[in-house]
Amino acid sequence: MASLLLKNGRVVTADSDSVCDVLVEGETIVAIGLNLPVQADHTIDATGKIIVPGGIDPHVHLDMPFMGTFSSDTHETGTRAALHGGTTTVIDFVLQKQGHSLREALTEWQGRATGTAVGDYSFHMAVTDFNPGTKEEIKDMIAEGITSFKTFMAYKGALMIDDAQMVGLMQEVKKHGGLVTAHATNGDMIDTLIAQHRAAGKLTPLYHYLSQPEVTEAEASGRFADIANYTGVNAYIVHLTCEGALNQVRRATERNQRVFVETCIQYLVLDASLYEDEVNGAKVVMSPPLREKKDQATLWAGINQGLVQVVGTDHCPFMWEQKMMGKDDFSKIPNGHPAIEHRMELLFSEGVTTGKISLQKFVEVTSTNAAKIFGMFPRKGTISIGADADLVLFDPAKKHTISAATHHMNCDYSAYEGWELTGKIDTVILRGQVAVHEGETKVGRGYGQFIKRGKTAF
Amino acid sequence: MASLLLKNGRVVTADSDSVCDVLVEGETIVAIGLNLPVQADHTIDATGKIIVPGGIDPHVHLDMPFMGTFSSDTHETGTRAALHGGTTTVIDFVLQKQGHSLREALTEWQGRATGTAVGDYSFHMAVTDFNPGTKEEIKDMIAEGITSFKTFMAYKGALMIDDAQMVGLMQEVKKHGGLVTAHATNGDMIDTLIAQHRAAGKLTPLYHYLSQPEVTEAEASGRFADIANYTGVNAYIVHLTCEGALNQVRRATERNQRVFVETCIQYLVLDASLYEDEVNGAKVVMSPPLREKKDQATLWAGINQGLVQVVGTDHCPFMWEQKMMGKDDFSKIPNGHPAIEHRMELLFSEGVTTGKISLQKFVEVTSTNAAKIFGMFPRKGTISIGADADLVLFDPAKKHTISAATHHMNCDYSAYEGWELTGKIDTVILRGQVAVHEGETKVGRGYGQFIKRGKTAF
Amino acid sequence: MASLLLKNGRVVTADSDSVCDVLVEGETIVAIGLNLPVQADHTIDATGKIIVPGGIDPHVHLDMPFMGTFSSDTHETGTRAALHGGTTTVIDFVLQKQGHSLREALTEWQGRATGTAVGDYSFHMAVTDFNPGTKEEIKDMIAEGITSFKTFMAYKGALMIDDAQMVGLMQEVKKHGGLVTAHATNGDMIDTLIAQHRAAGKLTPLYHYLSQPEVTEAEASGRFADIANYTGVNAYIVHLTCEGALNQVRRATERNQRVFVETCIQYLVLDASLYEDEVNGAKVVMSPPLREKKDQATLWAGINQGLVQVVGTDHCPFMWEQKMMGKDDFSKIPNGHPAIEHRMELLFSEGVTTGKISLQKFVEVTSTNAAKIFGMFPRKGTISIGADADLVLFDPAKKHTISAATHHMNCDYSAYEGWELTGKIDTVILRGQVAVHEGETKVGRGYGQFIKRGKTAF
Amino acid sequence: MASLLLKNGRVVTADSDSVCDVLVEGETIVAIGLNLPVQADHTIDATGKIIVPGGIDPHVHLDMPFMGTFSSDTHETGTRAALHGGTTTVIDFVLQKQGHSLREALTEWQGRATGTAVGDYSFHMAVTDFNPGTKEEIKDMIAEGITSFKTFMAYKGALMIDDAQMVGLMQEVKKHGGLVTAHATNGDMIDTLIAQHRAAGKLTPLYHYLSQPEVTEAEASGRFADIANYTGVNAYIVHLTCEGALNQVRRATERNQRVFVETCIQYLVLDASLYEDEVNGAKVVMSPPLREKKDQATLWAGINQGLVQVVGTDHCPFMWEQKMMGKDDFSKIPNGHPAIEHRMELLFSEGVTTGKISLQKFVEVTSTNAAKIFGMFPRKGTISIGADADLVLFDPAKKHTISAATHHMNCDYSAYEGWELTGKIDTVILRGQVAVHEGETKVGRGYGQFIKRGKTAF
Repeated sequence: MASLLLKNGRVVTADSDSVCDVLVEGETIVAIGLNLPVQADHTIDATGKIIVPGGIDPHVHLDMPFMGTFSSDTHETGTRAALHGGTTTVIDFVLQKQGHSLREALTEWQGRATGTAVGDYSFHMAVTDFNPGTKEEIKDMIAEGITSFKTFMAYKGALMIDDAQMVGLMQEVKKHGGLVTAHATNGDMIDTLIAQHRAAGKLTPLYHYLSQPEVTEAEASGRFADIANYTGVNAYIVHLTCEGALNQVRRATERNQRVFVETCIQYLVLDASLYEDEVNGAKVVMSPPLREKKDQATLWAGINQGLVQVVGTDHCPFMWEQKMMGKDDFSKIPNGHPAIEHRMELLFSEGVTTGKISLQKFVEVTSTNAAKIFGMFPRKGTISIGADADLVLFDPAKKHTISAATHHMNCDYSAYEGWELTGKIDTVILRGQVAVHEGETKVGRGYGQFIKRGKTAF
Repeated sequence: MASLLLKNGRVVTADSDSVCDVLVEGETIVAIGLNLPVQADHTIDATGKIIVPGGIDPHVHLDMPFMGTFSSDTHETGTRAALHGGTTTVIDFVLQKQGHSLREALTEWQGRATGTAVGDYSFHMAVTDFNPGTKEEIKDMIAEGITSFKTFMAYKGALMIDDAQMVGLMQEVKKHGGLVTAHATNGDMIDTLIAQHRAAGKLTPLYHYLSQPEVTEAEASGRFADIANYTGVNAYIVHLTCEGALNQVRRATERNQRVFVETCIQYLVLDASLYEDEVNGAKVVMSPPLREKKDQATLWAGINQGLVQVVGTDHCPFMWEQKMMGKDDFSKIPNGHPAIEHRMELLFSEGVTTGKISLQKFVEVTSTNAAKIFGMFPRKGTISIGADADLVLFDPAKKHTISAATHHMNCDYSAYEGWELTGKIDTVILRGQVAVHEGETKVGRGYGQFIKRGKTAF
Repeated sequence: MASLLLKNGRVVTADSDSVCDVLVEGETIVAIGLNLPVQADHTIDATGKIIVPGGIDPHVHLDMPFMGTFSSDTHETGTRAALHGGTTTVIDFVLQKQGHSLREALTEWQGRATGTAVGDYSFHMAVTDFNPGTKEEIKDMIAEGITSFKTFMAYKGALMIDDAQMVGLMQEVKKHGGLVTAHATNGDMIDTLIAQHRAAGKLTPLYHYLSQPEVTEAEASGRFADIANYTGVNAYIVHLTCEGALNQVRRATERNQRVFVETCIQYLVLDASLYEDEVNGAKVVMSPPLREKKDQATLWAGINQGLVQVVGTDHCPFMWEQKMMGKDDFSKIPNGHPAIEHRMELLFSEGVTTGKISLQKFVEVTSTNAAKIFGMFPRKGTISIGADADLVLFDPAKKHTISAATHHMNCDYSAYEGWELTGKIDTVILRGQVAVHEGETKVGRGYGQFIKRGKTAF
Repeated sequence: MASLLLKNGRVVTADSDSVCDVLVEGETIVAIGLNLPVQADHTIDATGKIIVPGGIDPHVHLDMPFMGTFSSDTHETGTRAALHGGTTTVIDFVLQKQGHSLREALTEWQGRATGTAVGDYSFHMAVTDFNPGTKEEIKDMIAEGITSFKTFMAYKGALMIDDAQMVGLMQEVKKHGGLVTAHATNGDMIDTLIAQHRAAGKLTPLYHYLSQPEVTEAEASGRFADIANYTGVNAYIVHLTCEGALNQVRRATERNQRVFVETCIQYLVLDASLYEDEVNGAKVVMSPPLREKKDQATLWAGINQGLVQVVGTDHCPFMWEQKMMGKDDFSKIPNGHPAIEHRMELLFSEGVTTGKISLQKFVEVTSTNAAKIFGMFPRKGTISIGADADLVLFDPAKKHTISAATHHMNCDYSAYEGWELTGKIDTVILRGQVAVHEGETKVGRGYGQFIKRGKTAF
């Protein structure tokens, strides 16, 4: 087994901060210490660098069929870009087709990811049709290491389940110790507003935003929490964006419930004023949409309050040509934006450098908490003995600029084009291999492994 | 420097869980690894043991003048007992005397603790008289490493400050980056109820409880949070016991505020039914009093929700003879009970063994969070390179029974007499020295050091 | 025009309390005064009686097709019984058939009520299928004097509309100044729980209760309030039963919204313990089900807080034989119970006599508020000049006992069988005619008129 | 006894709206009817006029010693001005002097009011020193018809009682069936902020506002509600101004508590931007200060939600010369502004004419609710048989302009100078006497009577 020694870095985890060495053998961290008296096959001088656990992005959509096209990053390009941004593990969504089994969907997704992913990955199972057959498959999925079940409360006729299915799914998942997650927006309300805007000839990106007002998310978040509380299942809201929704979670705490919350990097740093641009607004058409400044304040506070545990991306890129399918009608713009690569650097620059969050909190929300919630801890999410050697070396003071011209995502634009960030990722190690170094990819297609997951332990 | 090697323990921190070795040189952890290839002066076989960071109890009253007597544990006996229970660092309260300076009080407390403490300790400064003179001393205290300032919203005429002083104190502490903590109960209401009960000849311990109804704590907790929010200071509520008070903290989150919360072990495991015993009720006369079962549920939930960050003790023991000063009048019973020694074992047994909380959460609330909030991180609160080698070895399945006959606290009764616990502390190491091993104290009077503290970093 | 003089009664309205005379000419009150110096065709000595405005029950189901049968009171028998209980005006629900127009339904209901009702009546229009056609009919219905539109958030496939329809309906009703009301329970959740209980062989009335837990109502009440707030429509929740639901209304007030709330008499005086009787439990199978004691406390408080404005009945009687369709399966028990006759006497006895509410509040919640909310004020709901002479004479101290043997509802059981009440209705006057006197009906089939209603003015 | 007949007015009360005649004999309403067939000593043609019950202003300070001077309206000038504005009854505050008895204060106030008041008046007793002596006087005051007890949570050393006194007072008042009201602001916080602003040379009226931020009122309102809930007393918050405070009342409803709320006309129609004027800002220096637009929205909503029951004035006028005592220091500006005369016309114009509230709600909040809450119903607060003939005739469409040059208050400025209102009071009748007609006073000094009050009946 090859060994790798990182010398003299500032090793930061959710509960530590030490200048020391880290020794890796094969894929695993085997020692952490001051001036470890060892020789390794490879040595990296990490002096002046901050070393954090490899990032986990639990919300990505790779090679996903959506609105008649596919998101533009494959498992190969997407996980490669993720690695460049310090994210060593992603959790992608398998989407059941209504009328078909979970297994079929899993097989299809495995077909796309197996042997192609460059970084590690796992799957959530999106249950879009809960029925007696699906019910039987829940335990099978858990046996496969797919312990989180995504629900959509929107996209009726395609992805949405109703509350009857929600109750049944939650009960079954609870029985087997899994986790239910939700895209918590009121699809019926949104569909109505979209139709009304279209009927009125209101077709610019601004109307994408106005079709998903805060109440659509607050309502559904409350409803999801209510049903989860009734069933007792572990619950997690994905891409929560706004004050109204977080307040529902806060109120759920009054009945002694815990609902996990993920926000995404864009909701912390971008806002809805971008939709006023009739052309470029399309770049940030996503669901839920960007919100207001007051919602950003809520989300930053939520992180420090411990009520928002995870910062993901909902990475779902489309090429500009794809986005332009909706140039005359916002409802035809494929939803999503490219973010998998910049989550950690954006959060470091906008959160840590500015003093909004501590380095420990940064590690928690980019890695550790996701590992715990999604059953990958302590293999992932930490820098400790026996853990996968997934390590990210930050040059904390180095400035750099985001551009589609230089990013690694398969997307010809960036919503962050020209943003200058402080703190640049220098080197990324995945299971003991240098995966990225000074901007170059060092591991190839198929290096990424599927990570079987266990139960939530938080 | 002497070295110490712990072999093959299950090392658990707030963000790790590994079977490995820990190497200590002098007072410091220098390496953690799999089969570390080293020789040490001393080696402990930790196979089968869980190793957690030394506990931090941020709420103890040692050798404290109160109600005409002194709490019965000195800094020597108290910290020794703490060590036996895995608590390697305590934070004791220096009490300013009204009309006197903070410095005088600090000098007095230093006089009692310096050279006597067996375990490590720090001080909170209880500001009982905020005035232009005291205001000037705030920055001096911070320079001394005393960065947290305790306020009493009860005990008028002795310890209580009014809201006018509270505003001023918070503003000054905010200016210097410190933390304000509060005993948040409405002293005026309580004084009235005590007087009424006494006037009515209602003198048993039950009336201690009935003189401090939930509203007295909920009200003051909300008021403290309100003023803290106005001033912007970092705020921390000590010994929070009940649903009404935690709901005030929950509601404060809606305005993007974070208020840290400490509960104490007794509020998680004991309840107010004990006050019905007219004699033994005195054993658990403390302020706030024990609460109801529904409050216990709130507190356990609060821990898992991330809204209760710390489990302390408010250790304030009195000998039975002292307690009996109030045998005919609850208001003369010295407040407090002995708990410093059993906090970690009680929480392990009642929390971890029962599955109410994870091992990581156990470490967070007994050690890591206190270290972060009170500015001792990463020196304390974790098992990482460069940290103090404060380590506790648990034998997780071992059963044992609490008794005043065998405990080390200078108190001739225990509120937990006869409780059988699962999970026993085998060995405790403080700054590299075995302090306790199989029930024997291995370090002496004066081994404990004063820990200078920095700012909150959470 | 015949004249009628009530001498010397204690005339009580929501804002008055006077011992005086009331003079009626034809159908209308023309004078109120001390010792009015007039001769009338008929004179009633009301000395010692309390005279209140004729009751308005805005929630009754007469001759309603449901679960394959019809509620057992026709417009004739139902309004006659109502008169005996002091309720001079009822608002019945017209139920659109899905796939059919509102007009068809109205015509059908008019066919049943016109010429048969003994007391005055109006209609709510229950919109069970909101579509472009229905949308056009909203303004027509308002022109007909039907200004309130009922929605069902439960009974999928029969009565329920989804949130998409809800948004559209609310917008259209808002446009024309009407009111939207809701049966606010989460039908999907309930359907699931019913199916699960049936599948598990849990078939007794208790499982009716357990299939509609508090959360199903709280959730839907919050959702209804959310959508109403978004659309800005006047909103009203029918038959609210529980703390969870009222708390949603309370929280809606924080965003400056007003949601009107109706509870029903049974939720104030009966509780869920009745479901434990495997046979007689069927008598109180209704939706929502009876709740807990703590919910009764919430509702009484809500009345005094001004947050519950109306006490109705949801009168929907079925003969015992009909109820017994579900003797082996709670889900086949027709929902509802007979109450139209006893609402006012029950509330007088349990509310006014006990001191829970004032006489003024009694009038508000049995009459005045409904008149204002449903656009019948000041014609109905008050005792004032020009108003319809709808008057109820109470003998406030007289005791009497409820029994199916003596009640006037077409139902062979009473859920209140054997209850002794204090305060008995002596005489009821509807539009100037003595309708009931000492237990005898004095007006005939067809005396009741349809009341065209205007807009909410509260 | 002289008789008076009002012909053909639109008589509007909280629960009626009729075009009819009103007959008065002596001081009392004896008949209301259509074309009453009577001859009266005097007849007023009220065609086209709206007749409402005489207004009740439960919050005025006449001839009050404050800050070394007296409020500039005596009981004579103040009640005369009130009559011009349709307010026929005022409740003035008797202020106990700390160290003295309630009786002494009452005697002093009686000395000023008896024989001088032009309009009817009653007293609240402000308890500023609750002690064993005061405790004994509570029942005496109730026997005098003074059933409401005012507390100040601010003005330490002059008017403020602490929470210990509050508990005791509430218990005693509860025992005798009275009501406790509060000036609910945190005096300690405010005193600190005032001192800080003064020390910093921040002396303009703006700093009056900034010394009483919303939190000072929200905190105290919550505290007052908490203690009231504990003691079970009927509670009423005077001059509530802001969202934060009303939210405390809303949350109190969740524990089934009812707290009555009064706002004042100025908080509905003026806002804090006026404090930016360094000179004229003094005109609206009052406590609590004017608030923000969002608070106005809260208060209007609160009225329609039924959570704000009363609109008073806190009338406390000072001549400009008196105000100018604080021209160099906001803290020396006597608090208060002249409003007793314009409450009803302002609310009519800004509330009814604009459609914000209904005419019925207008009557409720200007008269009926105060009568019920303060134990004057049904003698006052309504137009009904046997009630005092206190009647206000509005010319609803008539426009007029407010000016200090024409108002009747003894104050040489108006905060509403130049405001054009729609709806002018034409005639005011007090106990059967025309008191004001077309701007002329028709009753003299001493016509006003002291109104003994009973218990709250709402």
